[in-house]
Amino acid sequence: MFSSQKSSEKHTTLFLIMMRLNLKYVLSSLILMVTCVTLMLWHRCDFVRTFPKRFYANQYQEESVEIDCVINQEYSIACRREGDEVYLPFSFIKKYFEVYGSLNTIDGTTHFDWSHSYGKVNLPRSIYDSKGIFMYFENYNVEVRDRVKCISASAGVPISIQWESQGYFYATQIAQFGLSHYSKNLTEPEPTRKIIEDADLNQYAWITPRNSSISRNYSTDITGVVNFATSNHIDSAIYSEMDHVVDLIMSIDLYFQQNSSMMITMQNRENQQLYVLHYILADLSITVQDENNIYYGLGTNALGKWKHITRDLFVDVQKGIALMYINRKQKMRRNEFKVVKIAFIGNGSFDNLTLSTSEHIQHFYDAAEWFVRNQNQSTGGFAIPVRRRLASGFEDLNRGWLSAMAQGHAISLLSRAFYHSGGNRKYLKAAVNALKPFKLPSSQGGVLAKFMNILPFYEEYPSSPSSFVLNGFIYSLLGLYDLHQIAPKTKGGKEAGILFDQGMESLKKMIPFYDTGSGTVYDLRHVTLGTSPNIARWDYHVTHVNQLLLLATIDDDPIFSQTADRWRGYMMGKRAMHN
Amino acid sequence: MFSSQKSSEKHTTLFLIMMRLNLKYVLSSLILMVTCVTLMLWHRCDFVRTFPKRFYANQYQEESVEIDCVINQEYSIACRREGDEVYLPFSFIKKYFEVYGSLNTIDGTTHFDWSHSYGKVNLPRSIYDSKGIFMYFENYNVEVRDRVKCISASAGVPISIQWESQGYFYATQIAQFGLSHYSKNLTEPEPTRKIIEDADLNQYAWITPRNSSISRNYSTDITGVVNFATSNHIDSAIYSEMDHVVDLIMSIDLYFQQNSSMMITMQNRENQQLYVLHYILADLSITVQDENNIYYGLGTNALGKWKHITRDLFVDVQKGIALMYINRKQKMRRNEFKVVKIAFIGNGSFDNLTLSTSEHIQHFYDAAEWFVRNQNQSTGGFAIPVRRRLASGFEDLNRGWLSAMAQGHAISLLSRAFYHSGGNRKYLKAAVNALKPFKLPSSQGGVLAKFMNILPFYEEYPSSPSSFVLNGFIYSLLGLYDLHQIAPKTKGGKEAGILFDQGMESLKKMIPFYDTGSGTVYDLRHVTLGTSPNIARWDYHVTHVNQLLLLATIDDDPIFSQTADRWRGYMMGKRAMHN
Repeated sequence: MFSSQKSSEKHTTLFLIMMRLNLKYVLSSLILMVTCVTLMLWHRCDFVRTFPKRFYANQYQEESVEIDCVINQEYSIACRREGDEVYLPFSFIKKYFEVYGSLNTIDGTTHFDWSHSYGKVNLPRSIYDSKGIFMYFENYNVEVRDRVKCISASAGVPISIQWESQGYFYATQIAQFGLSHYSKNLTEPEPTRKIIEDADLNQYAWITPRNSSISRNYSTDITGVVNFATSNHIDSAIYSEMDHVVDLIMSIDLYFQQNSSMMITMQNRENQQLYVLHYILADLSITVQDENNIYYGLGTNALGKWKHITRDLFVDVQKGIALMYINRKQKMRRNEFKVVKIAFIGNGSFDNLTLSTSEHIQHFYDAAEWFVRNQNQSTGGFAIPVRRRLASGFEDLNRGWLSAMAQGHAISLLSRAFYHSGGNRKYLKAAVNALKPFKLPSSQGGVLAKFMNILPFYEEYPSSPSSFVLNGFIYSLLGLYDLHQIAPKTKGGKEAGILFDQGMESLKKMIPFYDTGSGTVYDLRHVTLGTSPNIARWDYHVTHVNQLLLLATIDDDPIFSQTADRWRGYMMGKRAMHN
Repeated sequence: MFSSQKSSEKHTTLFLIMMRLNLKYVLSSLILMVTCVTLMLWHRCDFVRTFPKRFYANQYQEESVEIDCVINQEYSIACRREGDEVYLPFSFIKKYFEVYGSLNTIDGTTHFDWSHSYGKVNLPRSIYDSKGIFMYFENYNVEVRDRVKCISASAGVPISIQWESQGYFYATQIAQFGLSHYSKNLTEPEPTRKIIEDADLNQYAWITPRNSSISRNYSTDITGVVNFATSNHIDSAIYSEMDHVVDLIMSIDLYFQQNSSMMITMQNRENQQLYVLHYILADLSITVQDENNIYYGLGTNALGKWKHITRDLFVDVQKGIALMYINRKQKMRRNEFKVVKIAFIGNGSFDNLTLSTSEHIQHFYDAAEWFVRNQNQSTGGFAIPVRRRLASGFEDLNRGWLSAMAQGHAISLLSRAFYHSGGNRKYLKAAVNALKPFKLPSSQGGVLAKFMNILPFYEEYPSSPSSFVLNGFIYSLLGLYDLHQIAPKTKGGKEAGILFDQGMESLKKMIPFYDTGSGTVYDLRHVTLGTSPNIARWDYHVTHVNQLLLLATIDDDPIFSQTADRWRGYMMGKRAMHN
């Protein structure tokens, strides 16, 4: 290929030189050249079709001609043929087999990358540690997901809109939020923190309009607090202008009287657009007004009490903008925004106003507190307050259903809070209480199913009939493992160990049922409903692999490592053998 | 494409005319031509790579260039690119996905046929009838299979060499032989029969050498028989020459004294090669001598007794030739051969020498008799006399193991023999006795396994651990169904019904476990061994589909028809959806 290319270039150069030579010589050269170029190019091009078939087939097998490909006698597509080889368009292959491909250029050369799957396996760094990173959740960024409406300013945890658009607290999501921040705290560098105002060592210059007042008070506490008093009018707010770019995590202690609020003005650094985040005493999650006001409710129960909040101001703006322009989805980057103003209105106090690059542990404890406060003491459950239809054939899960995944995630989180807090027993108590649904059949409001009526299985969706979702089951087992590891000698820790062991026993027997020989199924609905298997998309397949790899670090049964290896192979197009 | 091609031909013609014109004119024409041809071909060929990218991309999207395809970052292959479309060679696709394809020409136009699978589904003609065709076994031709050593002349049934090269009686194969002939008898036209010699109405001219004798005797029976007496020397044989082409099924009643034999000379019509089939009083299955003598043993116990045999002379020759040229496999056609001579040597009698186009019912009864004679009366089993290693991880099946498939097939056969014979109870008795292993666990020598320790399953291979082979299970169910249908009011028939019902209950629950979303698994060894799934090759997948379609005609549970439809789709490249 390359040699013919070069020779053709040479011919072109020769041609120019020859123009100066005598005509006869030029003529014969040209005749030679025409013959040469014609013949040379001839068999590289596809109009050899008019040549007799034999000529083509015997001597010029490399010519490309169009040919119809009849697919399973159902339809046909245009292909290319060169001799005995037929070339099929990737656009067809992609759709037929659902593989992925893209043209990519490196150093000026374009090649085509074929991928059997998307998604990346996370190889375990070490033996799984219940006090450490939860799986690979340091990579999770729960709050920016589309299905998170916002982070509640009242609770400090995400509000889901996955299954109900007005938003609800979804224990699984809240736990993932908490566990991701716990994990990030272990993997990310120490944050930089700037205390803006603490009425002690750090004091800021506040602009106080006429008839408003600000004072620093040392009587109520061992440390000072800032008191403010303004009218209800916006112009009376005390405020301070600033220019903070990187430190978009704000934490503060607030003590608000009626009609008080905090306003933080954020600016888009590219288009200069200003957005005002209002933190108000109201029972609302998030609401927007005009094109720049975003309101978060601190909860009416925050009235007249000290309340500590930690806000990711970027996320707070992002969720507001998403609400303003509901049909215009736009990707926002954290470094597009800066804090330009903080203001207070009404009557109240505040303290420890801080801007940081991160406050993962504060988010983590916000989540842990949510679980402590929102557990049903008698069932031990973290009820999911939306009706859920898993699929046609299953009965709906009624509002208030429990999920083994949510319970397990919560236990993983609470166990870590117990450990991290140096043994605060309220977290342990909640974690142990969260075991209850594992012992109660799904039909009675628990999460315990029995595969083939014998093998205990903890259901992410305690459906009727059972659905046996694999990844949720394994997450629930991790929760049990974590509690057992962190409090092995307590009654609850021992119970968690027993529940873990019986679940693992089931899991080892059931893993093969999820193996299709070229991928995995997400659940066993095909078994319980008698329908088509519900193949796991590659995201979930990768989760399965990651989970088995993790389990292989804490259980040496070869089924985990061997199956994980095989399942990783499926992502590269490998298949189980046929007989 | 075609227009540029034509213009290039014109240029070539022009070129010859111009040779006679003045040089200057020729020169300028040639310059034009070189430029024209070069430019014209330039962008049709793959060295456009030297042109600026934009030029290529914008204006000549149809050009084919070579491009590397990097497959899963593991290796690369040469592809073609035309604009945004990339073409992949079928040789790669074929291997990567294991699909099938071939170039085929119809009316002078060649196209490429892509097949996702091979094999063809047999749509049921009507509701399955236990007195009728067994599945689609009228298409089976058991005796010509390579793994059939020969048809025993002593027993009239096939001898298998599938798992042991010296040959053994394999009940499953014998039943399939019998059931295929029963089914062919129902679907094929009535045979043409020519009675060569019955010593009554049909008498043939036999050549009787000196010192040999032939006579027709009417004293021993109500019909006449032919008696012959010769020396042991081949030259003394009484014989008759003939020229029979189509009628290659010979049946005869023989009464042989010591050292007697029948010799049938077959000729290959193409190369005139002669083969002599010797039916001798010996306990051997088949043996060959030189390049034309093939010996079949009638069994020493046939000495001094009347014995009826039915031989497919084509098969008898074919198996002999296969033994002679063990490394030179050749396809033989039935119409290549003819019968040219029949001879007898020794002392004995014969009667009813007949040549027919088929004698299916005789073969069927040969099989039925084999089952009656070879059943273990205490276990009810048809023991398989070879050790069998199913796969690594399973314990070997010991010599004498029973198979639910063999038992079921035998029951299907014996039930039909009971029906067809007008109620001969020896067949019914054997069929009922064959139920015993269905009630005995595999671990105790029976064929009964329990899936997950609860669901009864009849094992084709009663392995340890269980293997749960699907097609064998369904075949065994058909046997139970057949017996129940044919003798519903007998104790045995009722018992068969109960065993069938409990098996069907298991099957309905277990079918989904065999569904991979793009094919089926042959067994559940991945579950019991914890290994890779054993994907069913398309042959077996088709069998699964055929079996479900058949069951759908006798059980209206939608799982049969719905699953069969889905599984048929897999053969066309359809897949279960992912989430």
